[in-house]
Amino acid sequence: MTQSEKPDQQSVQDVALIVGGGPGISASCARLFAGSGMKVAIAARSPDKPVLENLEKKHGVRRYACDASEPASVERLFRDVVRDLGSPTLVVHNIDGRVPDIFRKGIAEAEPSMALNTLRNSAFSAFLVGQQAARLMRTNKTDRNGAKGTIIFTNASASLKGFPLSGAFAMACHAKSGLAQSMARELMPEGIHVANVPIDAAIGWTQEDGTRAHRLAGTTVDDNMADPDHIAQTYLQLHRQHRSTWAFEIVLRPWVEKW
Amino acid sequence: MTQSEKPDQQSVQDVALIVGGGPGISASCARLFAGSGMKVAIAARSPDKPVLENLEKKHGVRRYACDASEPASVERLFRDVVRDLGSPTLVVHNIDGRVPDIFRKGIAEAEPSMALNTLRNSAFSAFLVGQQAARLMRTNKTDRNGAKGTIIFTNASASLKGFPLSGAFAMACHAKSGLAQSMARELMPEGIHVANVPIDAAIGWTQEDGTRAHRLAGTTVDDNMADPDHIAQTYLQLHRQHRSTWAFEIVLRPWVEKW
Amino acid sequence: MTQSEKPDQQSVQDVALIVGGGPGISASCARLFAGSGMKVAIAARSPDKPVLENLEKKHGVRRYACDASEPASVERLFRDVVRDLGSPTLVVHNIDGRVPDIFRKGIAEAEPSMALNTLRNSAFSAFLVGQQAARLMRTNKTDRNGAKGTIIFTNASASLKGFPLSGAFAMACHAKSGLAQSMARELMPEGIHVANVPIDAAIGWTQEDGTRAHRLAGTTVDDNMADPDHIAQTYLQLHRQHRSTWAFEIVLRPWVEKW
Amino acid sequence: MTQSEKPDQQSVQDVALIVGGGPGISASCARLFAGSGMKVAIAARSPDKPVLENLEKKHGVRRYACDASEPASVERLFRDVVRDLGSPTLVVHNIDGRVPDIFRKGIAEAEPSMALNTLRNSAFSAFLVGQQAARLMRTNKTDRNGAKGTIIFTNASASLKGFPLSGAFAMACHAKSGLAQSMARELMPEGIHVANVPIDAAIGWTQEDGTRAHRLAGTTVDDNMADPDHIAQTYLQLHRQHRSTWAFEIVLRPWVEKW
Repeated sequence: MTQSEKPDQQSVQDVALIVGGGPGISASCARLFAGSGMKVAIAARSPDKPVLENLEKKHGVRRYACDASEPASVERLFRDVVRDLGSPTLVVHNIDGRVPDIFRKGIAEAEPSMALNTLRNSAFSAFLVGQQAARLMRTNKTDRNGAKGTIIFTNASASLKGFPLSGAFAMACHAKSGLAQSMARELMPEGIHVANVPIDAAIGWTQEDGTRAHRLAGTTVDDNMADPDHIAQTYLQLHRQHRSTWAFEIVLRPWVEKW
Repeated sequence: MTQSEKPDQQSVQDVALIVGGGPGISASCARLFAGSGMKVAIAARSPDKPVLENLEKKHGVRRYACDASEPASVERLFRDVVRDLGSPTLVVHNIDGRVPDIFRKGIAEAEPSMALNTLRNSAFSAFLVGQQAARLMRTNKTDRNGAKGTIIFTNASASLKGFPLSGAFAMACHAKSGLAQSMARELMPEGIHVANVPIDAAIGWTQEDGTRAHRLAGTTVDDNMADPDHIAQTYLQLHRQHRSTWAFEIVLRPWVEKW
Repeated sequence: MTQSEKPDQQSVQDVALIVGGGPGISASCARLFAGSGMKVAIAARSPDKPVLENLEKKHGVRRYACDASEPASVERLFRDVVRDLGSPTLVVHNIDGRVPDIFRKGIAEAEPSMALNTLRNSAFSAFLVGQQAARLMRTNKTDRNGAKGTIIFTNASASLKGFPLSGAFAMACHAKSGLAQSMARELMPEGIHVANVPIDAAIGWTQEDGTRAHRLAGTTVDDNMADPDHIAQTYLQLHRQHRSTWAFEIVLRPWVEKW
Repeated sequence: MTQSEKPDQQSVQDVALIVGGGPGISASCARLFAGSGMKVAIAARSPDKPVLENLEKKHGVRRYACDASEPASVERLFRDVVRDLGSPTLVVHNIDGRVPDIFRKGIAEAEPSMALNTLRNSAFSAFLVGQQAARLMRTNKTDRNGAKGTIIFTNASASLKGFPLSGAFAMACHAKSGLAQSMARELMPEGIHVANVPIDAAIGWTQEDGTRAHRLAGTTVDDNMADPDHIAQTYLQLHRQHRSTWAFEIVLRPWVEKW
């Protein structure tokens, strides 16, 4: 009898929860997960924006309002998702918490409140989301890959290297990595797969009208941007990895990126 | 026009070359790659052992004799593979070069010749294989994922951490990582995907007769061993990653492994 | 003319500010710095505790009350130190922010408020202290080693590796490392030496009455604890390194420590 | 009774052996160690070059001929040093093995023999020197810092990052790091301090005639080069660190270096 035939394993329908509602990685994940047969929930501060409405209409994705830096709001989110879709088997934390001018000011000029808010929005919200996911997944059945669930943290190259003029972002991204590592060592032996995925690039994609969209203004060459549809593909592969060979960290970068 | 429609891109049949002919990762890769429609070559010092004969009979895998630590032998291997199957698009270097007593002796007792042989068999053979692969792949067409080819180095946890009582193995595994990194930075912008995959575990699998096989004697629990069929799955995913999001290093470890 | 003879360089008296007032590293630094001819300030939430009173009486160390997680309090601290002693040339952030039960609870059980407080007390206070130090040091003269000042962050092994059952501490220590890295890349080219010093051990020392003191209960073997007097020695060496060869990170661990 | 009063500890005269005889770090170490009261030996393939003759005349440094990539030659070196000066307490391996055109050729063009020679000259010679040092130091008395000896490997930034167009050098430097790590974990608990010191810069210094010398042609700004006299200072500090707080790796880089 191999591992995949153990009697407590089930082939239940996956329930994916994506926290963070941008038009890049979150939307690509929602589309791919829904297209792969999962029930999909997406949470954002403003769940009424067109990109999310569109995901609901076209792909049946369920929208939730959530301030992921507030414990009560995160608790409510998970309770509602369980009620509506069932206990999540795949949770993606996709909030980096960066603010508009985070890369423009040196350590001497940066606002302390900006630094604290970045920590709250990124690392602390990852803690809250990871905590709720861990609580629920522990009670999940083990699936055919030997897993009770997968928790993925989207991260940035600032988690690998603290760049100048961005101390607050370096703090937050490193914090998220540290949390992910601790959770991985704690939860993997319980059957919960935890992964940290730093994207070492700007994110860029082709919009429905054929034009290119990307996060960083002024970038015009497609080839140096990471396509969120391909990022989502890696997330799905991580979710489906057998527990015999779990990856914890995968850095994704475009072929022409310097590193 | 998206990247996948560029005129110089072709959907040619993949040619995979696996250097190293063990019954674990190499055999799993050969089966999976052949089953995925690739033409597959496997090279080993002794290509006549039953496990390789079996791969030929059942999966059409072509066998080659090669001493991967000898420049002329590696040159000949690639020339013969090109002649027989075409230019390789996926090359896996799967030799770790460890010798029977490599973990038993401290730095003061280890044989210098053992240390030099380990370097030759592991790191230097990786250099030779990587070099031939790079030369050929540069002239390949770009495929649908934007790649001219993929070079994967199987590695060990000793590439991440130098453990006591194994200085020679730590040297060789670190050397292989350094080579892979240098090649990745050099070749990725040319369209060649280079990856380093440290396996942080013993390798274990179920044999055709239903018994378990593994490399390290005395290990009896399945769960703490990495199944080579799942490792091969990750290699295939790496090969198929779009160049928009290439991973360089993926550490694979079983869920219960301490790290 | 060598670098040490450049006309703008001065041999001014060093002003050291130690933020964090424990009886271990902070006290050892205060004694060593004072004994090396520096004017020394030490800041703590409760500056009236005996260990600090003793430093004042015996070593002339000046005490300040400061809540290092409050921007206004940190601003006031630096203003007062400048007024009393002059602009600091050496600032040590020696607060790890761990709370009593931080290592006892898993991610599912930990209090969110504990996690946020740990981030505030450790990483955010490091940001505040680093910011004030950077502002002041920029206007310092360059000393004989080519430096305008040195900023040292004491850190823990949790900054190198996220251990299980301590997600909040892993977050905070990683965040502090990320901040230190960003500040180093930003400030070193301006002549300000930034260093991160993870101590991979419990801290233990001999008290004035001859008994041993240490932070972690139940540890009885001296040899596996790091002596804060020796840690302080490394800090002084970092401060005196010539800018031709600045170290950013030095991990200190006892000889018998596993890593 | 503190550690420094244990009865088996002695304050014997240090015997330093520097393997590698260049005019940069090796010469700086020889001068500093001799000036600090040590008996100093220096080994080079050509011990008759003027820079070494000068060290003998002015600083009493003893010269030895050694091909550090040959086991018998390294054995003989240590035997001769023990006979002439006593058992070494500080050994520095200062050979990086790079050859003139090592950075000029890509992986596809590089000579295999160059790659193998680089491995032999750098990593394998480090193995041979480290092995002899470990054998002898085990029998040394414990000194006042709790150490039986110190083994330092000079390394390069290629040990931290595999740069393009230098696969062979990346292999060799990574290999040396892996060896140093393994030896540190093995030997530190026996009282032998092992350290790896990557210098992330070109090395530059002022010669006796007042002109500047450096290894990399075309570099004219002093500030971006590491002064070997300051590197030697760090080596001496490493040797004198108490075993309560041993550093394994210290990366040294000039203040203006990008990293």
